[in-house]
Amino acid sequence: MSIGILGGMGPLATVDFYRKVIDATPAGIDQEHLPVVVWADPTVPDRSAALSGRGPDPTPWLVRGAHRLEAMGARLIATPCNTAHAFLDEVRTSVRVPMLDMIAETVAEIRSDHPDVVSVGLLATTGTVRAGLYQRALEAAGLRVVVPGGLTQGEAVTGAIRRVKAGDLGAAGACLIERASEELAARGAGLLVAGCTELPLLLGERSAGLPVVDPTAALARATVREALARPAPV
Amino acid sequence: MSIGILGGMGPLATVDFYRKVIDATPAGIDQEHLPVVVWADPTVPDRSAALSGRGPDPTPWLVRGAHRLEAMGARLIATPCNTAHAFLDEVRTSVRVPMLDMIAETVAEIRSDHPDVVSVGLLATTGTVRAGLYQRALEAAGLRVVVPGGLTQGEAVTGAIRRVKAGDLGAAGACLIERASEELAARGAGLLVAGCTELPLLLGERSAGLPVVDPTAALARATVREALARPAPV
Repeated sequence: MSIGILGGMGPLATVDFYRKVIDATPAGIDQEHLPVVVWADPTVPDRSAALSGRGPDPTPWLVRGAHRLEAMGARLIATPCNTAHAFLDEVRTSVRVPMLDMIAETVAEIRSDHPDVVSVGLLATTGTVRAGLYQRALEAAGLRVVVPGGLTQGEAVTGAIRRVKAGDLGAAGACLIERASEELAARGAGLLVAGCTELPLLLGERSAGLPVVDPTAALARATVREALARPAPV
Repeated sequence: MSIGILGGMGPLATVDFYRKVIDATPAGIDQEHLPVVVWADPTVPDRSAALSGRGPDPTPWLVRGAHRLEAMGARLIATPCNTAHAFLDEVRTSVRVPMLDMIAETVAEIRSDHPDVVSVGLLATTGTVRAGLYQRALEAAGLRVVVPGGLTQGEAVTGAIRRVKAGDLGAAGACLIERASEELAARGAGLLVAGCTELPLLLGERSAGLPVVDPTAALARATVREALARPAPV
């Protein structure tokens, strides 16, 4: 049973996800860990730009990666990029193996771990926000969603994400995202979703006094759960 | 130009290597990073046990992984496991793409970055020590090699490596390896080689007052250098 990781979006987020898969695996020696294959193609066109109509559709790149992972023996595919989930329906129809849904797993964890929260603050790329990926899933679960105002989204959130993609995990990015968190807290959010895989690399367990939900970790836990539920090939 | 990573030995070491490849890549946005494919098969039999005659030969697993990476489009293969290098000559003959040599890259960095050092302390698995991988390469470069005594090797070094493989990066493992470093310092080592990919996860830049050379980082730098030197396929 190999786990397929459709990654590279961005590279550091792929490493963070892989690390969280290992952390979520009950293993004491190498041989108890799960086989993993990674296809990390950083040349996939910018997902957020595509959703804003400013760049090519990344779907053909994602389909190619999913096919390669399937050919390598992956029995399920995890895609540690929230924005890429806007394109996954079409990718799913092109492979025979299941592709996990990071957004659905995150909303399920919010419902079970934070049953009293009514309003969720969304920190994500402009593309993810515009595509409504989290809004639809959270509202279907009876939750209200608060998103940053235009200036905060375009400068603070986008700036923080861009810094991580450039390999900069320093305080500047953390300060930018904290500013966005404070705005969402002031507007009534009861928790924050770090809804871009770069953001858990900047955010701790709390931001602006609110708990931070980490979709990368939720996807990692779901990946290990699903992998362990499937028997190994003979 | 895809980088192939023959990993899983152990999983955390693969993540550490992948991270160091990203750190060594001159890139400001996702699309400037290098494509990476990873084959992480943690079921490869224990390399150190095989070299001590206590387990099966891992070569067939390594050959299979190298073939898969080649089939995925890898144009070169890096193997972030020092002990596995004892088996790579045979693996190399089974693929058409080059497989980098972590030991040679490390010795080259020692010669260029530490020209005054005459004696190198080796922290590695018992298999790597017994196979003489580093001793041959270091002695060929005119360097003396100091290895831990039997008890320190069997308890401190092996115990530290085992903890990392179990996901435990806490102080206990760091204390064990520091004890081994102190023994090598007392016996005249001028620097230490963290010659098992689990050890850089415990060791900082210095240990027992000596500089620590990180073969995982040396392999990552060599991987990026070689990848950038090869033109991308059309």
